[in-house]
Amino acid sequence: MGDPRIVTVRPEAGSYAWTFGGAAPVARVRPGDVLDVFTEDCFAGRVRSAKDLVSQVCEFPYLNPQTGPFHVEGAEPGDTLAVHFVSIEPARDWAASTTVPLFGALTSTHTTATLQPPLPEVVWMWELDRERRTCAFTTRDGGMRLELPMDPMHGTVGVAPANLEVRSALVPDAHGGNMDTPEMRVGTTCYLGVNVEGALLSLGDGHARQGEGETCGVAVECAMNTVVVVELLKGVATPWPRLESDTHIISTGSARPLEDAFRIAQLDMVRWLQRDYGLEELDAYQFLTQAGEAPLANVCDTNYTAVAKIRKDWLPPGTPHRGLHRQLRDAAAAFAR
Amino acid sequence: MGDPRIVTVRPEAGSYAWTFGGAAPVARVRPGDVLDVFTEDCFAGRVRSAKDLVSQVCEFPYLNPQTGPFHVEGAEPGDTLAVHFVSIEPARDWAASTTVPLFGALTSTHTTATLQPPLPEVVWMWELDRERRTCAFTTRDGGMRLELPMDPMHGTVGVAPANLEVRSALVPDAHGGNMDTPEMRVGTTCYLGVNVEGALLSLGDGHARQGEGETCGVAVECAMNTVVVVELLKGVATPWPRLESDTHIISTGSARPLEDAFRIAQLDMVRWLQRDYGLEELDAYQFLTQAGEAPLANVCDTNYTAVAKIRKDWLPPGTPHRGLHRQLRDAAAAFAR
Amino acid sequence: MGDPRIVTVRPEAGSYAWTFGGAAPVARVRPGDVLDVFTEDCFAGRVRSAKDLVSQVCEFPYLNPQTGPFHVEGAEPGDTLAVHFVSIEPARDWAASTTVPLFGALTSTHTTATLQPPLPEVVWMWELDRERRTCAFTTRDGGMRLELPMDPMHGTVGVAPANLEVRSALVPDAHGGNMDTPEMRVGTTCYLGVNVEGALLSLGDGHARQGEGETCGVAVECAMNTVVVVELLKGVATPWPRLESDTHIISTGSARPLEDAFRIAQLDMVRWLQRDYGLEELDAYQFLTQAGEAPLANVCDTNYTAVAKIRKDWLPPGTPHRGLHRQLRDAAAAFAR
Amino acid sequence: MGDPRIVTVRPEAGSYAWTFGGAAPVARVRPGDVLDVFTEDCFAGRVRSAKDLVSQVCEFPYLNPQTGPFHVEGAEPGDTLAVHFVSIEPARDWAASTTVPLFGALTSTHTTATLQPPLPEVVWMWELDRERRTCAFTTRDGGMRLELPMDPMHGTVGVAPANLEVRSALVPDAHGGNMDTPEMRVGTTCYLGVNVEGALLSLGDGHARQGEGETCGVAVECAMNTVVVVELLKGVATPWPRLESDTHIISTGSARPLEDAFRIAQLDMVRWLQRDYGLEELDAYQFLTQAGEAPLANVCDTNYTAVAKIRKDWLPPGTPHRGLHRQLRDAAAAFAR
Repeated sequence: MGDPRIVTVRPEAGSYAWTFGGAAPVARVRPGDVLDVFTEDCFAGRVRSAKDLVSQVCEFPYLNPQTGPFHVEGAEPGDTLAVHFVSIEPARDWAASTTVPLFGALTSTHTTATLQPPLPEVVWMWELDRERRTCAFTTRDGGMRLELPMDPMHGTVGVAPANLEVRSALVPDAHGGNMDTPEMRVGTTCYLGVNVEGALLSLGDGHARQGEGETCGVAVECAMNTVVVVELLKGVATPWPRLESDTHIISTGSARPLEDAFRIAQLDMVRWLQRDYGLEELDAYQFLTQAGEAPLANVCDTNYTAVAKIRKDWLPPGTPHRGLHRQLRDAAAAFAR
Repeated sequence: MGDPRIVTVRPEAGSYAWTFGGAAPVARVRPGDVLDVFTEDCFAGRVRSAKDLVSQVCEFPYLNPQTGPFHVEGAEPGDTLAVHFVSIEPARDWAASTTVPLFGALTSTHTTATLQPPLPEVVWMWELDRERRTCAFTTRDGGMRLELPMDPMHGTVGVAPANLEVRSALVPDAHGGNMDTPEMRVGTTCYLGVNVEGALLSLGDGHARQGEGETCGVAVECAMNTVVVVELLKGVATPWPRLESDTHIISTGSARPLEDAFRIAQLDMVRWLQRDYGLEELDAYQFLTQAGEAPLANVCDTNYTAVAKIRKDWLPPGTPHRGLHRQLRDAAAAFAR
Repeated sequence: MGDPRIVTVRPEAGSYAWTFGGAAPVARVRPGDVLDVFTEDCFAGRVRSAKDLVSQVCEFPYLNPQTGPFHVEGAEPGDTLAVHFVSIEPARDWAASTTVPLFGALTSTHTTATLQPPLPEVVWMWELDRERRTCAFTTRDGGMRLELPMDPMHGTVGVAPANLEVRSALVPDAHGGNMDTPEMRVGTTCYLGVNVEGALLSLGDGHARQGEGETCGVAVECAMNTVVVVELLKGVATPWPRLESDTHIISTGSARPLEDAFRIAQLDMVRWLQRDYGLEELDAYQFLTQAGEAPLANVCDTNYTAVAKIRKDWLPPGTPHRGLHRQLRDAAAAFAR
Repeated sequence: MGDPRIVTVRPEAGSYAWTFGGAAPVARVRPGDVLDVFTEDCFAGRVRSAKDLVSQVCEFPYLNPQTGPFHVEGAEPGDTLAVHFVSIEPARDWAASTTVPLFGALTSTHTTATLQPPLPEVVWMWELDRERRTCAFTTRDGGMRLELPMDPMHGTVGVAPANLEVRSALVPDAHGGNMDTPEMRVGTTCYLGVNVEGALLSLGDGHARQGEGETCGVAVECAMNTVVVVELLKGVATPWPRLESDTHIISTGSARPLEDAFRIAQLDMVRWLQRDYGLEELDAYQFLTQAGEAPLANVCDTNYTAVAKIRKDWLPPGTPHRGLHRQLRDAAAAFAR
């Protein structure tokens, strides 16, 4: 096996995708290829100061631009696409977060509809220190500077959906999309079920960091330079997105109400324990009940996203997804040298 | 004003739409035109006997075929399309209902995910007596015949969605779609906000009748011969589908959890009372609280649909939607002569 | 059989119950007894003008006073108490409705918690015309008078709960309580499962009328003079409150999210169709799906309440609850003469 | 200050509490007292082998026995009770977990009601190795032994509820109760708002360990020997239970649907950041959005419980709850010597 092919994409202003499905591929790639891409922030780069209110500077529905889609050769419905994150690096030394009227967990919204007026629209500009790996903002009255570790991730990774649908890049669902889980960080492999020929992978929505639940609806949003390796598992179905790191196996579910997102992720984990670790259904249910972690991803998007995690060192022997994560990890290490 | 133009569409097998948005128009119509259409049942006509299980005879995602879409000349985003139902007549003397595995309100589903096996898959064939206006089925053991009044309606009426999306015909949302409300019967005008040029109206999913909530997920499904008049309200926005009959004004909301569908419909009714009946916001809230009816539409689809209704004879003076319903009612009467 | 015994209760200020369970009986009654009672309004009579804001004049948790509890002789866990409403008459010529901060369907609440400030607190005084059977309020700016038919009902009817619990009179659950359904009107029989010896029936929360869903959280609240007949069905369990009128059988469910309230009521109706009408489970599911009405009761209380109804003239032959409703109807007619 | 008083309680079979509120105190304690208690497991010790099915050996509603209640002298409504966990040690070398019919997250339940039969009822017996600090069970076919670290905690800690209510020990709500969060471990201080004179603290439901969400509804249930220190914060209100460890501040919320539990916990954390760390409301919202952890506690009980956490070393300077946690930590250390 020779060196992997590197596909570099730095989209121009007019060439982002705003949906999963329904957009023409920007490139054709082969399993094993490395994608070296730039992703714009969720505001399409238009929020650059505390004065840039989303409702004024952004143009709906042109939010959450995606880099892609990439047509993956050989990918067919019933297969699984694997996307391994080799690096995710903020492309600028600043990021932005905001409140958006009638969006977020601690406000009424267009669907949790009330007669109350929206919360004030506020922008927080964050400084990113890429050397020290920190991000910080100053409170609105200037009185306090709050600093947190940088922990870069992608809020949005997905493929074209099933059922002939085209979904906004703001939506998380079975095709992935805007799941907004902090688990989507460097060193992680994301598994996505393929629904259409070529899979049509896109990614975007970089976050310098994000809390679990993404409470106000907006993370520390920034443009990213990101490298991923793409692989294909032929004949393996993945009904809901899964992630795998060196330390954990991770199922996701996206739905409303939030308990349904939880149920999807938990049931998927039971099925994973059955398939790759040989546990019988009810034993898997018992093991998950006592061993599982259940951090929330987002409680603000069109669907809410829940995560089910188990530490690998607590699992019985097994080889998830035919050992693909380890292979990709090794390939990434070789590539990094 | 001359006679309305009548546009007749009897789709061939390959020419139904399976989505809202994303399908090419089958015809261009003008405001005021009459559409005389055939709609196939939600099973694409494949369930014809008690042996025809949906999981065996239907081909996913080719469910809930829509007749259309119709490009309405002059329709632009921000306008409202009005669809007045002149007649809805079963096209056959039978209809079908079924359970579908992991679909319906009294079963776990793909999102309300549990470890329990699905309910048995059963088909009930209904006899339609179009003279007596009844429909009836015989219990599975043959011991009882249950007869109900026929009350024909369309489960699915909608336009292309906003946000660049394409949605399955099984989904109800702000664009209308699979709302499954028994209110969508003859004599009713349905108002839909236009999201794309030409609106792209489709309809289908005829029901000989349906209970409120559509509990098992499937109504008395039948092919229909349906006549509607299409009109356009320029410059009037309609965020969520509204209906109007001679006796009621009706708001709808589609979301999960069900209380959000309720909230959307109720808030929409408050706004309607403000705009067309001159009530101040909190007075409208009070009036709706005491005067409103809140029958459920469906509690089984991708989104649940709730309805808010008020009797017209309880309302203060006002002219909803510029009096369009009355005009369409009169036009339909003239046309029927 | 002789004349029924009439038990008259006009509570003094300090002798209302504020809970279901946990209160000492005010009287012992026998099956067949007639209760002729006064019930105070939900504000304990303290809201008497537009200036009487709930947050100022009411003393939490002393809201929703109940007349009772009544110890019903012979009632044991596993039995069913039947309460037939002979008359419900407003005791005053006025009633009140209000907004209450962080309470209602179109506002955030203490559990649907947001950062938004509450809606303004407003009182609407309603005039009751007991001759013309109407109720009316004037809009806040005095510009409009809105009149609706009177349709008196009790928002709260219940027994002591199971599981050793004592619940606030503001809560609806399996023991009944604050269900806030407009179906609880004259001519209706309410069936409640008995959880403790003596059942401990209470009632209150009279409404001159109420819309379905009780959107703002507060109906047209008034004191009532009410007459009910109490009966007992020995050895018949009733897991969730049921109602029966001359025209309908009616199941209820109270839970959150709202779809669970719907599920409970619908499943209860399936079981009712099985037990009293001889339908097999899946046939009952099918019949309910096509024949059922599903008006909401409340979408504002601690639990939301949904209703499942079927018209009696559509049902197969059957005798619900051993024919008790008809007996009570006849007894009430005899008593009224 | 002298040595703390140690109050030792080893309840006899008939002297557990089954509710919060409504039970007579077993002891009166003073702020600063140490409680050295035995708590029975949630099955009241009746599940002792794989043959002991809950539906057969347990007697409803006598589940989840609580040790207490303790009347805390000086505690009044509006105060906050602090309970610091000094040690939580399994009292036996075994524990049990089970499925319970129509209870748990991956099954329909009495409220998420469906027509499906319940899952099989199964008991798993766990071996506790108190030296190695592990717990383990063998799969049902005997083929695999699964071992996890012990991480003892209390599922249930609470005080008498507000609003004159008495709640089953199975319910989590604003009074605490059956929150089932793994955060309730040694070294943690739990803050509970006082609703009645004396607070009436109880605790029970020991778990050798539990996953987040408690998916099947039942943790690794075991009797515990537990030591806590009790303190009182006069004049400090705590609307929803809070926890504090050496590393985190932790808010909780208990409600349905699950997003409401999330909202309560998140809003409580915003208020905490405002009160004890000087952040303005929207800055606190922003900080929490990026810094918060949101692990679920239970998604199976009468209310679901969500947790909001922030690492103390990321917080701005501040002294939560007047520094009480540190004092109790030090007192516990002194006591342990």
